[in-house]
This record gives sequence, structure tokens and C-alpha cells, in this order.
Amino acid sequence: MVLADELAKQQRSISVAEFFEKNKHLLGFDSPTRGVITTIKEAVDNALDACEEAQVLPDIFISIKKTGNDIFRIIVEDNGPGIVPAQVPFVFGKLLYGSRFHQIRQTRGQQGIGISAAVLYAQLTTGVPTIIISRTGPKETAHRFEIQIKIETNEPDIILQQPFEWDRIHGTRVQIEFKSTMSAKKKLLEYLKYTSVVNPHARIRVELDDEAFTFERVSQDVISCPTAIQQHPHGIEFGQLKRMAATSEQKLSDFLVETFSRVGKKTAQEMCGKAGLKGTAKVKGLSSDELKTLLAAMQAVVVPAPPTTQCLSPIGEELIRRGLDKEFQMDFVAARTRPSSVYSGHPFMVEAAIGYGGRLPFEGNVIILRFANRVPLMYQQGACVITQCVANVNWKIYNLSQQGLPMGPVLILVHVASTNVPFTSESKDAIAGIPEIEKEIMLALQDLGRELKIFLSRRDKNKVAEDRARAVCAIIPELAAKVSEIVEKPLIDTSPIEGKLMHKIIAKKWTRDEKVTIEVSNYTGHEEEISVYDISSDNAANAAPKPEFVSEVDGQFTKVWKATIPPQTVWLVSYTGKGGGMLDIRGIEDTKKMVVDLDV
Amino acid sequence: MVLADELAKQQRSISVAEFFEKNKHLLGFDSPTRGVITTIKEAVDNALDACEEAQVLPDIFISIKKTGNDIFRIIVEDNGPGIVPAQVPFVFGKLLYGSRFHQIRQTRGQQGIGISAAVLYAQLTTGVPTIIISRTGPKETAHRFEIQIKIETNEPDIILQQPFEWDRIHGTRVQIEFKSTMSAKKKLLEYLKYTSVVNPHARIRVELDDEAFTFERVSQDVISCPTAIQQHPHGIEFGQLKRMAATSEQKLSDFLVETFSRVGKKTAQEMCGKAGLKGTAKVKGLSSDELKTLLAAMQAVVVPAPPTTQCLSPIGEELIRRGLDKEFQMDFVAARTRPSSVYSGHPFMVEAAIGYGGRLPFEGNVIILRFANRVPLMYQQGACVITQCVANVNWKIYNLSQQGLPMGPVLILVHVASTNVPFTSESKDAIAGIPEIEKEIMLALQDLGRELKIFLSRRDKNKVAEDRARAVCAIIPELAAKVSEIVEKPLIDTSPIEGKLMHKIIAKKWTRDEKVTIEVSNYTGHEEEISVYDISSDNAANAAPKPEFVSEVDGQFTKVWKATIPPQTVWLVSYTGKGGGMLDIRGIEDTKKMVVDLDV
Repeated sequence: MVLADELAKQQRSISVAEFFEKNKHLLGFDSPTRGVITTIKEAVDNALDACEEAQVLPDIFISIKKTGNDIFRIIVEDNGPGIVPAQVPFVFGKLLYGSRFHQIRQTRGQQGIGISAAVLYAQLTTGVPTIIISRTGPKETAHRFEIQIKIETNEPDIILQQPFEWDRIHGTRVQIEFKSTMSAKKKLLEYLKYTSVVNPHARIRVELDDEAFTFERVSQDVISCPTAIQQHPHGIEFGQLKRMAATSEQKLSDFLVETFSRVGKKTAQEMCGKAGLKGTAKVKGLSSDELKTLLAAMQAVVVPAPPTTQCLSPIGEELIRRGLDKEFQMDFVAARTRPSSVYSGHPFMVEAAIGYGGRLPFEGNVIILRFANRVPLMYQQGACVITQCVANVNWKIYNLSQQGLPMGPVLILVHVASTNVPFTSESKDAIAGIPEIEKEIMLALQDLGRELKIFLSRRDKNKVAEDRARAVCAIIPELAAKVSEIVEKPLIDTSPIEGKLMHKIIAKKWTRDEKVTIEVSNYTGHEEEISVYDISSDNAANAAPKPEFVSEVDGQFTKVWKATIPPQTVWLVSYTGKGGGMLDIRGIEDTKKMVVDLDV
Repeated sequence: MVLADELAKQQRSISVAEFFEKNKHLLGFDSPTRGVITTIKEAVDNALDACEEAQVLPDIFISIKKTGNDIFRIIVEDNGPGIVPAQVPFVFGKLLYGSRFHQIRQTRGQQGIGISAAVLYAQLTTGVPTIIISRTGPKETAHRFEIQIKIETNEPDIILQQPFEWDRIHGTRVQIEFKSTMSAKKKLLEYLKYTSVVNPHARIRVELDDEAFTFERVSQDVISCPTAIQQHPHGIEFGQLKRMAATSEQKLSDFLVETFSRVGKKTAQEMCGKAGLKGTAKVKGLSSDELKTLLAAMQAVVVPAPPTTQCLSPIGEELIRRGLDKEFQMDFVAARTRPSSVYSGHPFMVEAAIGYGGRLPFEGNVIILRFANRVPLMYQQGACVITQCVANVNWKIYNLSQQGLPMGPVLILVHVASTNVPFTSESKDAIAGIPEIEKEIMLALQDLGRELKIFLSRRDKNKVAEDRARAVCAIIPELAAKVSEIVEKPLIDTSPIEGKLMHKIIAKKWTRDEKVTIEVSNYTGHEEEISVYDISSDNAANAAPKPEFVSEVDGQFTKVWKATIPPQTVWLVSYTGKGGGMLDIRGIEDTKKMVVDLDV
């Protein structure tokens, strides 16, 4: 017998389930701790997608409990539209099964692998079937399933299915049990925090052993569900066209108009003309060569870009800024939503933000927050095109130091939204280096870099000006006193000099003989409406004028006065006290104010 | 109708072919140029694997030709054992089909995806079927196939199959046509160069448009084909054990002995005892709980590590050193083959090498060469655990500068050999960060770092010693002359002083009044046999003694004398000439010689 016959005996078909069981790291199950996060991520993705489709405000409950030695039980429950009983076994018990793979719109899940991978992992490590409860509406019965996957065939194995009394009107609950060491609590809470930043309409509750955390919704508006669009004529490959043509009963011009986005009758005619084909020809009857000519013609004719507003769901500059402000309280935040673009026929959109200072750590590399279709990416930062772009920007020209990545108290957020995010693997941890996406990220980052540079140089200038002002304000009165003593003339008011130096609102606070004085001089040339904030251990009971508002926390009194100050006018308040503490004025740009605390 | 019913209609099974058509970047087809390299890589992997199985010296022919606008035809032909006609359609026309997925041994291909992915890509971009010719032996008929993949079902579509007159006795030829811009020539040649470094028994010829390149074999020994081993009892998960048990008709103790590697009768008994199960019990009849207890017992009992010598095929330190020397001619090379280890039951082995100086570029980051199962990894360096380990080693303590990666004229090679290399995606570009593998790579690199440090500090010491010697040798004679003048005594011979400073062979060359003198003094304490090389514009026709050998190139004469010099003895030669040029002595370690050209 020849060797080839020998070898032929070893040839075998490999089931998808078998393949991913052996290569479970491709699905994000390379370590037990990571498995927990991957599972929760997949379940939450599904819950958010489903709630978006049902246009309900998501209420998601997550529970993680140790049930035995190294065995953890994970429960994720949502208030989505539920899954009809006939579909449950396939959705959870078959890899490569789902509703979103074939639709051209932005969704979190897109592969039909995610949650079934977790079922696979549970069955591999503990052998415990996954329990699913789902109910599709108040008039429907809930069903309870116990599901596994038949590895050799990648088909669902229904161990149990029965009606179930459930106190929810609609929703889905999945309970998965697998081996883990669960030391990833910090990472999990981080994942949930970032998820809630980009899904402000979601409420997520977590019970982690004996601790409970809630990520409350900050918006009561459901986000609109992206609707599917048709394939764009410029983003189609020959093999796809051939397949579509083979199953069509239409005439060529109808086929073009009805199958592709942005193709009207006139465009279809132009395409047919360029290809030398009749619009009335049956698509099915076209030869391979005719289809090739048609494809070339389709790509040669000018067609508007695909309509992206309906199929993509960007977060928006305002929301990104607010989300970051809430979490990091930085000195500076700027955000950009780029115009939509297309790669290989898939519409996509890049959003980015940059933040500086505030609570960010001063030392070390920049913090990079990566998102794809409103899902935070938690692993494989080094493999992601976002990280590569951050490293490829020359940040030195924007006044940041850089060693590979930029350094210092900087945060960079990038969100890639697409009808098909090109992840580097099924675990969806990192985005592949597609040139079109790379370009958009670079443009967004460079744009933000320029804004940051303006902020940094203004801040530096402000700092110099403020230092100088502080020095001047401290010395001028003493200088004036000395001068008046020498020349034996009465002491002059030096405030106008200080103001003229600055053209600003100048707030000063000083304390002499237990009397605290706050003086606000307006040198801006315009009337200004401001609030004066004074925080110290003094309660300012005898203040004149009276503060609008006083509050006390731990012996520190916050006193707020509102004042409208005409140009070249001084507003004054004084009270008995020890002074010190903190002074600020609000209601005016930072660059136009100067606060000098002479007690300090 | 409830929403869930609406949504259910969109639920669909996704075929593997459909999945990878949409996510072709996962298979290494994210850009047309990369597609060419991926295709050739997959075909060459298969060819080398098949030749190894057949134990023939691989003769691989590759041709890349432009056939039309942006269309390239790629041919890869091997002299392997061929594929029987019944298997050809499946091997090329079905994703997830192959002979190597289910075997526990080191192979290049391991997923059953590679070459069929190229067929898929061809059909998508050009629609041209892939042509395969294969013959399994001199008495067998060759067959010619035209194959595509049915996308919806992932089954082969045989467009043509017929007997074929082929002038090869055995082998396989695959011809694939797809869209590309083919600007990746440099990357392709690099890939082939590195492939031939780690496969010195292979001969690879390439025709690239009108250019031909040959990577000749440097070894006539076929490398032994790794043989498959059985699963190790410590590397098995519950789900696998349950499946194995369900299909076994054996008694428990026989099952353990015959199914697992390193389990003998005694070990099997111990496992049964620990689990409280009878060795005579039918495996099939064990309950889920009994199997859980059994698994715990299997993992608690001490079992030797899996036998790796048969299933793994490391390159070997000697061969790595020789391969690198040939390509880079460095000043220093060291290599390490680590002992084999295991992750999740998969045996693996790490080899590494480090090189310094020579033809390596002096500036910029280190060059990293990554290999997995004797295949060079060409893309996604940043995503690979090898790169991460190189960055994680603290190279500063080994006297290299470092900014993330180490810098300077350094080359680092790492080869991971395993029965299942954990790639980060199906395109097999980068290895995932499995902790066990990470640890082995770190240990190998740190070990090599220490060797490099010794080399570098010795070289630095040598350089200092040589500089000092040059200074001393230049000054001492003049000093001596001055002294003899002052004290009015005859000039003494200063050479012994110089030698005593060094304990070395010292070669000196000087020219006075058109007389060139070369003096070699042996201060080593032993008799030394050396060759003196003197290259200059002098032909040394009247040299005494006569050189062994004189050759002339472009007016430069290379003169070689052989000399055996007893300890504390001086060897002399002189001739008429202008001097200058270059002097060297060979046949003695660099650290024991010192060459001082006083003419310079």
C-alpha cells in the first residue's frame, strides 16, 4: 500500500466545536480567570443587543458565586424580549448560530459564537449543563432548559426542557458553571464601569460573592437600534456577486436596484451600459465572465457612500466627554466623532477622546480605553490597531513626552463602530490593522493632539501669568506702604495697578486681626456675573453681605455669594474668622480670572 | 406577535466557510499582498509536513506570475507522498478538515484550515477554481482537480476531476489564482530564507515573474518525523474524559493504561484506589460524579511528564547557531534548547538564540525572529508572547540599552515547538500568552542574556587592554631611547616589558628607511603555532624568511608566513617596501593576541 493511502485514513472532518474546544484561547478562554470575564461580557453583549432591539431600558443582573472548590456559578439575567423556546437550544448549544451575522448593522455580537463558547467551556471544565430560562411576553410561558453541545457534531444537546413559573414578564436568564480561580474582580468591575460609560441607558447590578455593586443608568433614553442596510456596490467581491446572482430570479436592473444600497434606476442603467449588458437580462443566466464585467462596471460607476446614520450607533462627543468627566475628573477633555467611512464594503466610524490631568496618574504610560461597537476591549492591548495608532502619532509635537506610547497624565479613548468590526480573533479583544480604520484613528488622534497642545500651552502661559500676578499682588501693597512711609503721603489703593497688569477679574482674600476680607475687582472691561466660593472653617455668621448659601461638612463651611460686578468696580465682603481654606470664583472663563489667597 | 417571534426568524446557522469569508483577516487575508504570503506559507507548510511523513528530502517549487490586471497565479509543487484522489476535494475544498488536528505531535499544519482558506479567498476575489494535481506513486495515475468550496455548506464543489499524465512519480501541485498587488517580494524572500534556516534539509526554488531564486539544502539528512503520543493524564479536562468514557467498551484499568501516556498497570491501580473505583468496572457505566472523582485521582497521582522526544522536533542549538552564522555573520551567537514542558496537557519546548554585532544594524530596535513548529512567523509581532517576553526581560542588567525592546546590534530568535501551538488566531501569526510558555521563553532569554553579558564585558575589557597596549607599545621604545640618550647607555630592548604587561603574543610592524619589519614575540608561556597575515602594496619579493604564500588583488599583496614560536622567543621578518596596510595573526585566540601597527 502506498503511503498516501496510509495517510488518507487519518484524514477527518473537524467539527467547529472540536476546533474551538482545542483552541479555546481563540475564544478568550486561555485562563480560568479570563473565562469569567469573557462569559459575562458575551452575556451582557447579548442582553444589551436584545434590549436595543426591543427598545427597553436594559436592567441587567449579574451574580458570581463560588459553589465548590474552584467552581464558580455565573448568572446573567436581562429584561430583554426573550428567546422563543425553539431557538434557545441553538442560540446556546451551537457555535456559529445567530441572528446578527447576516445583517449589515452595528451590533455587539456579530459572530454567533460568544455565549455558546461559554457553554462549551463549562461543559469541558465541570460537565455541568448550562441552565437557561427565557420568557417572551406576559401571555407566554417561561421555559427552563438545560443545554450542552454535542462536540462531534456541533449540535445542541437538550438535557431538559420544561415550562417554568417565572416572576419576570420577559427576559432571559443564563446560568453557567465552570472552573475558575476568580481573582479578576478588579478587571471585572473595570469592564462594567466602562460598559456603563458607553451605555448610559443601562442599569447593571452585580453580586460578587457577598459584595453588591450597582452601575446606575444616567440616561432615561433608550438608544435607537441601528437598522440593517443593504450591501454597497463598491464593497462586494466577485464570489459574493456570483452567489447572489445564482439565487436571483430577477432581471439585472431590478436586481441591482433591490439588492444594493444607493443604487437607483438611473445608476443601475449606467452600470448595465458600462458592462455592455441588457437591464432586462436574467441575472441567473449571466456567465462568469459577464459577471466579472458587471462587477468592474459596478465599481467604476460613482455611487454615494453607504448610509451610515441608520446602521451605526456612535456614542457622540458630548456623551463621551460627560462619561469621562464623571469617571476621571480631568483638567481637560476633548472628543471627536469622525465622519463615517467604509472598508471592504463595511461602514465604520471612529470616535476618540483625549483627557489630561485631574485624577490621572502623573507617571508612566498613557491610559488607553478601547471600545468596539460600545463594548470595552479588556485584553490584548498590544495587538490592537488602536494601540498601534496611539504609538504611531508623534505626540512630541503636541508637547507630550513619548517612549513608544505617550507618557504622563493622559487618557486616550478610541471607539470603533462598524457593521463588521475586524477583530484579530474570535475572542474580540483587539481590532486588526485594516488601513482604512488606521487612517481614521490617526486623523482623530492628531486632531485631538492639536487641541491638547493648545490647552497645554495656554495652561503653561496661565501658570506663568498667575505666578507673576501672585508675586506682584503680594509685593505691590507692601511696596506702596513703604513708599507712602518714605514720601510721607497717605497709602494709595494699589488694586487698579494689579488689575491693569492683567485685564482680569481678580479675587483676593486676606485676614487681619480675625477679620476676613474677600475683594473681587473687575478689570475685564465688561460687567461680569460671578459666584464667589469660599470654603474654610469659618461659618461667616456675621458676613456682610450675607452669603446666598452655606453648607457644612466635617467642620468646613462652604459659603457662596452671587455678585454682578460692573467694569472697574470692586465687590467686597468681610466677616469675623480665622481665614485660610480655599477661594474660587465661578461663572467666568479660567483664563479671565485670577484668584490670590494672601493668607496662604 | 411578540417581538421574540420576529427576532427568531432572523436566527440562522452560519457555515464555517461563510464565517471565514466574512472574517478573512482571521486567516491572514486582510490585504491582497498578505494573501500571497499566507497562501504560499500554507502550501509550503503542507509540503514540508507531507515530505516529513514520507521521509523524503523536500524539493519545493514555487511560482508567482501576474496573469492579468491585479490577478496573480500562484503554484506550489512538492515531491511529497501525494494525496489519494478521494481525499483531494476535502483537503482543498472544506475548511476544518485534515489529518493532523487529532494527533498529538508537532506538525506545521494543525488546524485543517490553511490551504482551503486560500481556495476560499481565490474563489471570492477571482472566482477561478483552484487546480490540484496529485500522484501517490509510480504505479498510480495522477489526477487533476478543479475545486471550489460551497460557501453555504462548507462542502467541496468538484468542478472537474480527471486522470492526468504527469511526469512526476509522486507529489502534489496546487495552482491558485487571486487578486493581489504583490508588492511583498521582500517579505516573501525573507519568509523563504527563514524557512530554509530552520529546514536545512529542504530545497526551495522560486520563480517570481522573471526572476529565479533558489534556497539550496545544506543538509542531506531528512529530519525524523515526530510520532503521535497519547493524552497525558494530567492534561485532560472533565469534558474530554466524559466523552472518551462514553465511547469505551473497556474495563477502567485497561482504559487508563491504553488511553493515556505514562500510565502503567501500577499507576492505573493507584488511580482507581484513590478514586474508590474498581479497576474491573466498565468505564461506560461510570456516573458523572464517579468520573469527576476519577479525574481528581488521575491528577493527584504522580505521573512522569509526557515523552516529548518522539512527538517534538526541536531545531537544536548547533543548527540554530550555524543557520544564524550563515545569514548574519555576527561577532557572537549563543543558543539554548530548553527542556520540554507542558501546558494544558500539550507538550512544548522553547529554543532561543541571541546574536550580537557583525552585520547587524547598529541603530534601532533588536531584530526578533519568531518561529513556531519550524515555521517563521511573519506578521503581528506586537501581538506575540515572544515579543512580550523580549520586552519583559530587563536587558539593562545584561549591558544592553532598552526602551521597551532592547536596542542595538542584537538579534533574538525564539522557536516554540509544540503538539498544539496556541496561536492568537487562525492565521497563525502570533503565539498567545500562555503562562507556561511565557515562563520558558523568559528563562531561555535570561540565560542567553547572561552569556551575552560575559561576551560584552570581555570584549570591553579586551578593547581597554588593547588601547592601553597600543599606547604603551608606542611610547616605551621612545621613552627608552630618551633614557638611553640621557644616561648615555646603549638602547635596551623594550619588547619583554611590553610582553610582560600582557602575557600575550605581540605582533608589531614598523617601517624605517623603506625597510619593513614584522616582529612577533611570544609572551604566553607556551609554544604557539601561528600564521602571520600581512596585506599591503609591498610584494615583499626580498622577504626573509620567504612567505608561504603570496597573492595579489588590485595591487594589494597578501603575504602569509607560518611560524612556530617557543615561549619567550621573537620571530622576525623584514623586506624592502613602504609598509602600511594591515597586519594580523591567526591560529590563536583573540584574547591572547595583540597586533600593533606602529606605521598607523
